[in-house]
Amino acid sequence: MTRPIPPDLGAQFKPVAGAVTAPRGFRAAGVAAGLKPSGAADLALIVSDSEAVGAGVFTTNQVKAACVTYNQSILAQGQPVRAILCTAGQANACTGEEGERNNAQLARWVAERLGIPAHQVLTASTGVIGQQLEMAKIKAALPHLIDSLSPAGGESAARAILTTDLVPKSTALEANIDGYTVRVGGIAKGSGMIYPNLATMLAFLTSDAAVDPPLWQQILKEAVDLSFNQITVDGDTSTNDMVLALANGQSGIPTVQAGTKAAQTLAEMVAQVCIHLAKAIARDGEGATKLLEIRVQGAPDDRSARQIARVIANSPLVKAAAFGGDPNWGRVAAAAGRAGIPFDSRLLEIRLGDFLLLEKGIPLPFDRQAACKYLKGDPVVFTVDLHQGPGQGVAWGCDLSYDYVRINAEYTT
Amino acid sequence: MTRPIPPDLGAQFKPVAGAVTAPRGFRAAGVAAGLKPSGAADLALIVSDSEAVGAGVFTTNQVKAACVTYNQSILAQGQPVRAILCTAGQANACTGEEGERNNAQLARWVAERLGIPAHQVLTASTGVIGQQLEMAKIKAALPHLIDSLSPAGGESAARAILTTDLVPKSTALEANIDGYTVRVGGIAKGSGMIYPNLATMLAFLTSDAAVDPPLWQQILKEAVDLSFNQITVDGDTSTNDMVLALANGQSGIPTVQAGTKAAQTLAEMVAQVCIHLAKAIARDGEGATKLLEIRVQGAPDDRSARQIARVIANSPLVKAAAFGGDPNWGRVAAAAGRAGIPFDSRLLEIRLGDFLLLEKGIPLPFDRQAACKYLKGDPVVFTVDLHQGPGQGVAWGCDLSYDYVRINAEYTT
Repeated sequence: MTRPIPPDLGAQFKPVAGAVTAPRGFRAAGVAAGLKPSGAADLALIVSDSEAVGAGVFTTNQVKAACVTYNQSILAQGQPVRAILCTAGQANACTGEEGERNNAQLARWVAERLGIPAHQVLTASTGVIGQQLEMAKIKAALPHLIDSLSPAGGESAARAILTTDLVPKSTALEANIDGYTVRVGGIAKGSGMIYPNLATMLAFLTSDAAVDPPLWQQILKEAVDLSFNQITVDGDTSTNDMVLALANGQSGIPTVQAGTKAAQTLAEMVAQVCIHLAKAIARDGEGATKLLEIRVQGAPDDRSARQIARVIANSPLVKAAAFGGDPNWGRVAAAAGRAGIPFDSRLLEIRLGDFLLLEKGIPLPFDRQAACKYLKGDPVVFTVDLHQGPGQGVAWGCDLSYDYVRINAEYTT
Repeated sequence: MTRPIPPDLGAQFKPVAGAVTAPRGFRAAGVAAGLKPSGAADLALIVSDSEAVGAGVFTTNQVKAACVTYNQSILAQGQPVRAILCTAGQANACTGEEGERNNAQLARWVAERLGIPAHQVLTASTGVIGQQLEMAKIKAALPHLIDSLSPAGGESAARAILTTDLVPKSTALEANIDGYTVRVGGIAKGSGMIYPNLATMLAFLTSDAAVDPPLWQQILKEAVDLSFNQITVDGDTSTNDMVLALANGQSGIPTVQAGTKAAQTLAEMVAQVCIHLAKAIARDGEGATKLLEIRVQGAPDDRSARQIARVIANSPLVKAAAFGGDPNWGRVAAAAGRAGIPFDSRLLEIRLGDFLLLEKGIPLPFDRQAACKYLKGDPVVFTVDLHQGPGQGVAWGCDLSYDYVRINAEYTT
């Protein structure tokens, strides 16, 4: 390996507190509007004090929630944005024209109270598919939400976007770019699709970098490909999945230009933030007891490597073996082989942690007891080398446990 | 719906006993060679009394067992074949050149004892990946296997090819084609990949029809696309999957020509046999408590419909909902949407049995108690209508239960 596999890139960046409010010029808040039966916080708002460049990556599902198509049409215009409002309780998917009207109404309400145009407010929803948003409750909670906005509100917003997640997910990194202190922060929620389709992977990123819309979109898209597109809890893609990113330039750095070292550093920061959040989502998968990391190298290209890693991480047999503590290289080999990427199985090499299990396509003797012990730990790392090219990639998942079945089978709509 | 969905086609054919020995001129046997620790039958042989036309459909996995590449090279030559030998215990995959030599040796041993050329013997293996075949045990058992060949041995062979399956799977159909009584029989095994990769879907078909190699191959391929390619237990594709079919012409019918009514009838019989076996495999999936049938109609074309049906049947969330008895149309809609087939979600209709759950993309009120009761039964049928074209297709799966996790997690290699 001549190049480091992406998750190792991040050592150069300094972790800082504050999540989405770590970068300068952002405020955030999370409050309870009564959308969740539990009474927990369920309404989050992130606001940039000045106009920000927006970027977004959205679900490829044919069934799209109202907020997805709304944000796509706003971001397509390339105009500045200021805020992201997120509701947690109803997904506002499969809700027809009434759902679209409600979504646009939310943006108008927030815009009026912030004194900005409605088209500067992005929206996100997560929760039960097929239910209309509880508009009266949201309207009643908005004044309190906006009063609560704070430059220390990042973690509060991180909690308010959760549904069935067990833990909030947030991070922020800092780097010196061309003499300026630049930060990127993020929050996310995930955890599979349960409580019928309390679905959805959401992530919101902020930065005080200055960057033009096409480069910001490209940086976000590449980071998502390395991170959120490489995690899997159960292989399902939600109607509401989205990643949004705002960059407001308040670090003072001159606009970062494509092709420069500064652009490369900013891209690596965004990728590191996304990878951190993606791993946190995978680790918090429904019923998960451990993080599963699949590293693929020696593939024809990075895209092929990432594809193979994803298929292995998504194999129920590999996931069940990780839960049971079985060093089952055969399931890994079989999953790699069905990823649609041609390779010569006579060159295949598979490692579990440091244990070499398969070399040149043939199983080797190994210390089974020690390997089983390693598998009982967290995380579990499989490394697959195709020995056929420079391509490499990583995917993350979790084990498949009795609790996954319990959570998803016992709920009644 | 103007056309019947494929599984309804079969009413015109008469079920008969005998499995692969129902067609004239076939003998079969299954004996115990000691390859399975349980001592159960593990060596099966099917022999045609005269030269037969062979066809085969094989795994697309990049990691292929020795028997897969061996059969592919034999069938590519289009020459007649006479026999299929199947071993159950070791998969003979990831076994290198020694595995290839052993596989060829098996064919030679059988050929010598039958007095036929070695290239008229096809081979199949199922079992643990990475273990060499136990050649001495197989060699010792061959005389008894060949002595046991019988025109009533179809069911005996059906039992000898099983690994973790709970029940043998076999069927045979009869039809009058152009005044001749023609039969098609089949046996199969499946049941997911366990006991590390006691993998593999195998099916062997026989017929006393007379047919040229290209048409026989086409008939088998189309039947597999409607059946075995539409079932899923856990989404994994094995290193050893194969479907083989022999046609020996002993019904007396003149060679069936492509494009005729006779060819159409023969193709429907082969498809029905494959669908019967495929459903039996899905119903016998690891930990399954019921069969899940997903019918898709109104798609742009049949291929798209089958793709969507497969993705729904393979969704762990849909499978867990079926186990738990939850009428969760949202999971079905979300799975349909991520199948890679564009459709307008505002036209989407979803039924559970006779319950209309979603119409024009919007959920309808329904009798929840009655729907839950329906879901407790077996089979469970979801029908998805895209209202966008004539395409239709069906896929089968099983529910996801605690036992799936137990079987796949608790085994230690």
